[in-house]
Amino acid sequence: MSERTKGRVTIPTDVDVVPETLELVERWGADAIRDCDGTEYPEELRSVDAKVYSTYYTTRKDNAWAKANPDEIQQMYIMTPFYNAEGESLRIHLMNHLYPDMLAVNSRDDIKRWWEVIDRAAGEVVPADWTYEEKSGDVIISRTKAFHDYTVSFLAYIMWDPVHMYNAVTNDWKGVEKQITFDVRQPKTRAFSMERLRKYIQDNPHIDVIRYTTFFHQFTLIFDELAREKYVDWYGYSASVSPYILEQFEQECGYRFRPEFIIDQGYMNNTYRVPSKEFRDFQDFQRREVAKLAREMVDITHECGKEAMMFLGDHWIGTEPFMDEFKEIGLDAVVGSVGNGATLRLISDIEGVKYREGRFLPYFFPDTFHEGGDPVKEAKVNWVTARRAILRKPIDRIGYGGYLKLAMEFPEFIDYVESVCEEFRTLYENIKGTVPYCVKKVAVLNCWGRMRAWGNHMVHHAIYYKQNYSYAGIIEALSGAPFDVSYISFDDIRENPAVLDDIDVILNVGDAYTAYSGGENWKDEKVLTAVKRFVHRGGGFIGVGEPSAYQREGRFFQLSGVMGVEEETGFTLNVDKYNWEEHEHFITADCEGEIDFGEGKKNIFALENATVIREKDKGVQLAANEFGEGRSVYISGLPYSFINSRLLYRAILWAAGSEEELHRWFSSNVNVEVHAYIKNGKYCVVNNTYEPQKTTVYKGDGTSFEAELAANEIIWYTI
Amino acid sequence: MSERTKGRVTIPTDVDVVPETLELVERWGADAIRDCDGTEYPEELRSVDAKVYSTYYTTRKDNAWAKANPDEIQQMYIMTPFYNAEGESLRIHLMNHLYPDMLAVNSRDDIKRWWEVIDRAAGEVVPADWTYEEKSGDVIISRTKAFHDYTVSFLAYIMWDPVHMYNAVTNDWKGVEKQITFDVRQPKTRAFSMERLRKYIQDNPHIDVIRYTTFFHQFTLIFDELAREKYVDWYGYSASVSPYILEQFEQECGYRFRPEFIIDQGYMNNTYRVPSKEFRDFQDFQRREVAKLAREMVDITHECGKEAMMFLGDHWIGTEPFMDEFKEIGLDAVVGSVGNGATLRLISDIEGVKYREGRFLPYFFPDTFHEGGDPVKEAKVNWVTARRAILRKPIDRIGYGGYLKLAMEFPEFIDYVESVCEEFRTLYENIKGTVPYCVKKVAVLNCWGRMRAWGNHMVHHAIYYKQNYSYAGIIEALSGAPFDVSYISFDDIRENPAVLDDIDVILNVGDAYTAYSGGENWKDEKVLTAVKRFVHRGGGFIGVGEPSAYQREGRFFQLSGVMGVEEETGFTLNVDKYNWEEHEHFITADCEGEIDFGEGKKNIFALENATVIREKDKGVQLAANEFGEGRSVYISGLPYSFINSRLLYRAILWAAGSEEELHRWFSSNVNVEVHAYIKNGKYCVVNNTYEPQKTTVYKGDGTSFEAELAANEIIWYTI
Repeated sequence: MSERTKGRVTIPTDVDVVPETLELVERWGADAIRDCDGTEYPEELRSVDAKVYSTYYTTRKDNAWAKANPDEIQQMYIMTPFYNAEGESLRIHLMNHLYPDMLAVNSRDDIKRWWEVIDRAAGEVVPADWTYEEKSGDVIISRTKAFHDYTVSFLAYIMWDPVHMYNAVTNDWKGVEKQITFDVRQPKTRAFSMERLRKYIQDNPHIDVIRYTTFFHQFTLIFDELAREKYVDWYGYSASVSPYILEQFEQECGYRFRPEFIIDQGYMNNTYRVPSKEFRDFQDFQRREVAKLAREMVDITHECGKEAMMFLGDHWIGTEPFMDEFKEIGLDAVVGSVGNGATLRLISDIEGVKYREGRFLPYFFPDTFHEGGDPVKEAKVNWVTARRAILRKPIDRIGYGGYLKLAMEFPEFIDYVESVCEEFRTLYENIKGTVPYCVKKVAVLNCWGRMRAWGNHMVHHAIYYKQNYSYAGIIEALSGAPFDVSYISFDDIRENPAVLDDIDVILNVGDAYTAYSGGENWKDEKVLTAVKRFVHRGGGFIGVGEPSAYQREGRFFQLSGVMGVEEETGFTLNVDKYNWEEHEHFITADCEGEIDFGEGKKNIFALENATVIREKDKGVQLAANEFGEGRSVYISGLPYSFINSRLLYRAILWAAGSEEELHRWFSSNVNVEVHAYIKNGKYCVVNNTYEPQKTTVYKGDGTSFEAELAANEIIWYTI
Repeated sequence: MSERTKGRVTIPTDVDVVPETLELVERWGADAIRDCDGTEYPEELRSVDAKVYSTYYTTRKDNAWAKANPDEIQQMYIMTPFYNAEGESLRIHLMNHLYPDMLAVNSRDDIKRWWEVIDRAAGEVVPADWTYEEKSGDVIISRTKAFHDYTVSFLAYIMWDPVHMYNAVTNDWKGVEKQITFDVRQPKTRAFSMERLRKYIQDNPHIDVIRYTTFFHQFTLIFDELAREKYVDWYGYSASVSPYILEQFEQECGYRFRPEFIIDQGYMNNTYRVPSKEFRDFQDFQRREVAKLAREMVDITHECGKEAMMFLGDHWIGTEPFMDEFKEIGLDAVVGSVGNGATLRLISDIEGVKYREGRFLPYFFPDTFHEGGDPVKEAKVNWVTARRAILRKPIDRIGYGGYLKLAMEFPEFIDYVESVCEEFRTLYENIKGTVPYCVKKVAVLNCWGRMRAWGNHMVHHAIYYKQNYSYAGIIEALSGAPFDVSYISFDDIRENPAVLDDIDVILNVGDAYTAYSGGENWKDEKVLTAVKRFVHRGGGFIGVGEPSAYQREGRFFQLSGVMGVEEETGFTLNVDKYNWEEHEHFITADCEGEIDFGEGKKNIFALENATVIREKDKGVQLAANEFGEGRSVYISGLPYSFINSRLLYRAILWAAGSEEELHRWFSSNVNVEVHAYIKNGKYCVVNNTYEPQKTTVYKGDGTSFEAELAANEIIWYTI
């Protein structure tokens, strides 16, 4: 080991682990110390030689205020389940299936204005003919149509902050007062919050960094009557509302607000939904307003001589770090949880801050740190997975969170993280200030564009879902791959088709009718012709899952002519299909045996000129096609793995017509990757596995050498 | 064996098999002899003691006429593939990928009226700006929009009858003149055809039955440039057109015809398409006209003292045997090919004829009757599969077709069919004149109703498709099950919701957006409330695949509230799902181990109150639910098998709330079935397998006894 370095590492602390904290400051080279939800910063550490972060809860931890100002408690929109009308009237209990202590129906504001009763069979609002019975908590619809389903969209106050509740339930906290979420956007609380912030900073002079957790609106998180998670959307805006805000929205946007803009048939505008104009307007409005108000707090922070750091999570809704308004907040730093490579880029790609910090897993909570737990394994997987992405676009700091006391009981964990900290500092030194070598410029095309960069197919941060891993795998592979990755939207193309001009390969990834594949956007001839023209003139297109799917004018895949594949939905069973023979191909040259297409698709067939690369039970899984001067690749699904990452790498090169560029900064062994930092004269070879690996390393000029790497090893070379 | 019986059997003959024909008349008890395409009826048999059928080709076998009247050759609508416009003009060769000898472009009629050039990107007809270049056979579009796709819908003459071509290619016939299809509906050919028929009957006094093969319009069948099947739709109407007919259609329906009514974006209105009003109008018109004209031929047949029999196949389009017009044709008989139980019912359920004949497989063609072939096995499978359906609704005769000479080389086959003929006569005797005992009244609900009774999910007669077997299995199971089965359409419900009143269980079976599940019909609150009301008041509903699927108002399955299941399309990933635990259930009481759901569905989840019976990788395959007084069962797919047939049987009983009726005319062993004919005082126990079986047989009063059956055996009892 080289001489011990120091810095770029944040650790948690608590009143009962003062010596341990000091030990880790030394061993891990930590230069920042933080508290967490449920911990206290110890007196003894006030003068330690490290920056002190203090988690600041903008929207909670002051129930006295919340209770004194019940009208300014944060609200959320909720839709009841569907209720079938059996007869001529219907009674709907609003709080059914909701955790009773978390929410309270808001009947203070004009319910006829802010609620909506909808006949879902007719698709019509029920304007009158309903009342709310305060005593029972029921909406009574007095005139229903038999066998129509009805829903009620209503506003509820958040009486127990969802993250506080989650932490309390997960850690089995006893006797804690349930923290009410208040709405900083509303006038009284806004004024109060600025004073509260100043007072907090005054009372805590030892603090260097205010770690906002976070600003104003929690992502959507609801618990059911059994305190189980009922609904979660890390990108959800439904808990960012109040009549006060919505009236401003109406004034700014010039049309009347409807609860359905947020409720969205109960789908709550999750990121899989092709967004409506009204929801986009609302998001834009929220971004502007959140940035403005957050700026006020950041200004106070700076005025008081402190740094302002934002936690990318919890009450982060409306900050949208990849959108222009974010820079105006004036933050010094962001910190976010690192679940994998994609979530690392979610942090490291943010601009407009001085530094970015990744909080690594495992969080020091008893769900991992218990007898029989294997925190080292979790830490290794987390680090090695994220490291690929760090090597493309580094964060500036790493950190950990939770109860330090728990971690100290696992000495091997402490040792391992020590090596991680050292490794991080070395790579940061080698990379800083450069853009790594990029083979190609690729753009992921969907409804969201840059607003959901790296977060495509993400439901609850990095959590696995059966329906998303085969698509999220593409994003994860890209997070650590030598490409210049951008995220563009259909609107971007509509506004300026030239946005495609300097792109080598477009990717369209997702299920039919979702915002990720694009749905109705594919019926827009502007979009369709722009993408076709792009490919025809030599561009590459990679479609994954049900790319460009929209049933119209004789096609399900609107780009079937480009991709050479179509989906059998039943409408073309009559057409005989003869193109099933598999071919060897550049794209699969490194694949041996079965390829894991994840959930894949079952009913894809190839058109006559396409090259089938893999098919399974008469369902094409992988195919290549040419269209004009350009090329297209269809993949049915691609979960993240080293071999699939290589497959995607080759697919991009092939689609771009650049097979000859394969052997530049390249490892023959798929378990090993090579990254070059030309400006700094450095390159590294990195073993992504937990076993030793041998490989042939190709340098930028195509020359090669053999290398052997220890498990997880990263070797740095000078160019 | 009991005393030898005779009759109800038809055999083929040819000039080279006179003694063999006579032998089979004796051994099989045949009382009818027929010729086939490619055979001749021998002189020597003109006076044999059996009815003589003669295949009569209404639309072909007279090229002299066809060539003399090229304007009355039968036409069909064809859509070219999609052609991408790279620049400002586009040249499309109409005959690309079509077998050149089969079709000839019709540029005789006004192409600007009867053809359509469509910009498929814009979804707009190109009214002018195109010409047809006779010499090259190309349509030239002179002003295109770059990167739009264009198609041409055009009329082509059928220069080689598709069935004649199929027979010629399959049997490798050499030097045959390609038979042109002429259009009997057109004036000159119509007059000619009536004379031709009279002359034919006069010239062939030995004939007893004119076996029409068939009337006027071939189902859609197209071959590609390599003489491979390119497109097939056994229900297709696209080869039933001509400007002459279409002008009549316009006059009768009162609106202008568009080629797109037939072309349907290239989907050609196959039965999976939710039918358009215009296509339904066209079908109705064709039914009326075909019935009228066929009636003329039948009248001539009768006038000449012969019987008229219709082959249910080939040029059968427009006859629609389950629709009212069919009876008006006045046929004596129908004959059809029996591929399985469903196709048997396709024949045996026809009303308005004196008798129905099933032509069994294998057809005596060299594809089966060659060295190493096993025609006995094929015959057994065909017979045993169809027998279930015969026992529910018998045909009146059985028969075989092809080259008798080939069959005679397989003495075991001759022996086996001898036993089949005997068995058929016995069961016919025992069943005739009765309605078998029905446990429940079930209705299959889709866009087609009775018009596609027993033909649901059929593409090319009984042929397997990956995408249909999991649904066709339901129809096949029903074909031999003790239910009174009807087929109803959404229109039936709209016209009169009381149509549901005497039904016990409704089935809705198919993929989303197809005519079989119903697509947009589920947004009609009349349909939705009628079905919900039906279940709520105690009816049963069984949904298979993607029943009631139509994305609208917060739901993909519009009946998710009834069925207790919903499909995850990406829009509800945010919703936590806890109902995964499998439960034992009445429906699966006979299932051991894995259940074969065929293609199944991957992304179905259960709502909170539903009972999950089977799930696989977090995808519900089978679930039960209650709705009001009624019950619902969801099945992801159900290929035909004995155990699945039992599963469906139990599902229907459970859905109807009639579990206690299980042990009536019932076999404990799923390989054995029991059918009762109360009026005739008979019941039978039938072994559907090729091995001996033991079972407990339950009679109508619930009493039981043990029975042992030989392979395939059917045992008859007196009640």
